[in-house]
Amino acid sequence: MIDRKAFRSLSSGLYLITARDGDAKFGCVVNTLVQVASEPPTLSVSLNKENATARAILDAGRFAATVLAQDAPMELIGTFGFHTSTELDKFADCNHALDGSEVPYVTEHGLARFSVFVTETIDVGSHYLFVGTVEEAEVLETGDPLTYAYYHAVKGGKTPPKAATYNGGDEAAPAGVSATPSGAPEAGKRIAWRCMVCGYIEEGYPDGLPEGYTCPICGATRDMFERIEL
Amino acid sequence: MIDRKAFRSLSSGLYLITARDGDAKFGCVVNTLVQVASEPPTLSVSLNKENATARAILDAGRFAATVLAQDAPMELIGTFGFHTSTELDKFADCNHALDGSEVPYVTEHGLARFSVFVTETIDVGSHYLFVGTVEEAEVLETGDPLTYAYYHAVKGGKTPPKAATYNGGDEAAPAGVSATPSGAPEAGKRIAWRCMVCGYIEEGYPDGLPEGYTCPICGATRDMFERIEL
Repeated sequence: MIDRKAFRSLSSGLYLITARDGDAKFGCVVNTLVQVASEPPTLSVSLNKENATARAILDAGRFAATVLAQDAPMELIGTFGFHTSTELDKFADCNHALDGSEVPYVTEHGLARFSVFVTETIDVGSHYLFVGTVEEAEVLETGDPLTYAYYHAVKGGKTPPKAATYNGGDEAAPAGVSATPSGAPEAGKRIAWRCMVCGYIEEGYPDGLPEGYTCPICGATRDMFERIEL
Repeated sequence: MIDRKAFRSLSSGLYLITARDGDAKFGCVVNTLVQVASEPPTLSVSLNKENATARAILDAGRFAATVLAQDAPMELIGTFGFHTSTELDKFADCNHALDGSEVPYVTEHGLARFSVFVTETIDVGSHYLFVGTVEEAEVLETGDPLTYAYYHAVKGGKTPPKAATYNGGDEAAPAGVSATPSGAPEAGKRIAWRCMVCGYIEEGYPDGLPEGYTCPICGATRDMFERIEL
């Protein structure tokens, strides 16, 4: 007796979680960062087990977090949220710095940043829940935080299947994004489909991706593809 | 190097967490409920160790949660958030039901409700972090959730010292609440001070509570008292 729609009423913000493992930098977007104790100041965050950033935190035992501002551009969210750190240097085009433990954190479009020493890692099925003590906490700028509700309602953002709050992908499609054809392509162009999770572009299927289609790279379902013209 | 103000940019909703221990019913208000895994659907919540509801969850291994709607009255939040279940039957004046495990949950002013079987309890200092599998999830009504930001900015709500997100109590005082005198009392009445955490009324100090004053019942600091007239 579980109605997945019930989970949509939980409120959260959006955060960049970053980590370092050896010389490699990792980062992703989550909506699961929460302060779970006041003394000592403690944060928890959950990340999908398949996430490269999760594996880096498992190895290194530390992470940093940046609280995204409401005006954070979709490009920044897309870079960190819909690609994998093993294939893309997510820090190449964004301002970042190193904390006292040399963990990178993003400094642009962020209201605050935290550095966390992981004290507990809990296996919760699809995800790891990391719990840790805050070693550094700094206000970066004043402004409204980007909430998950704002991201969906105003920015037209999607929930990737690897998110803790992915509950079937049956959200209403945001304006301008459709997994079924909407009219003919512009002259000289052809219809294609771009996976919003991993960026893979599927050039076949001008009439729409068939039912049951999944991304050959990341396994995302049909509704995670947006129509583009090449 | 921890700036407590940084934590204020974390976004959250407000939730009623309820539990049963033997024949006794317990409940409190938190802003720490989060979905931490999609498979199996898993929620985590942190509660202050001194909280009667936390002790009931420790004993019983189960809790229920109701997502508060934006129109939830301050009286409901006050009943569950600023009193202890050992001294007040919080369910006496609100609509509630029992889940499949006979754990009570509040049905009024709620958008959704969950029943959780606790699989992990993590000691995080001032708080326990409970992690558990969702056994029941139901949409109760449609509407906007009550966010913690809305509670503070629009409803003028306070953060009790036992909250995970209590970071020093130096928030701006909401309109209409003051720990210093504001004018003479109405004719025939006298000034008193009511603790917004435990409800204790301090009848002395017509000129304002002295610096360093703490509630003799719950230890709340001076800024958690509101001026009333008796």
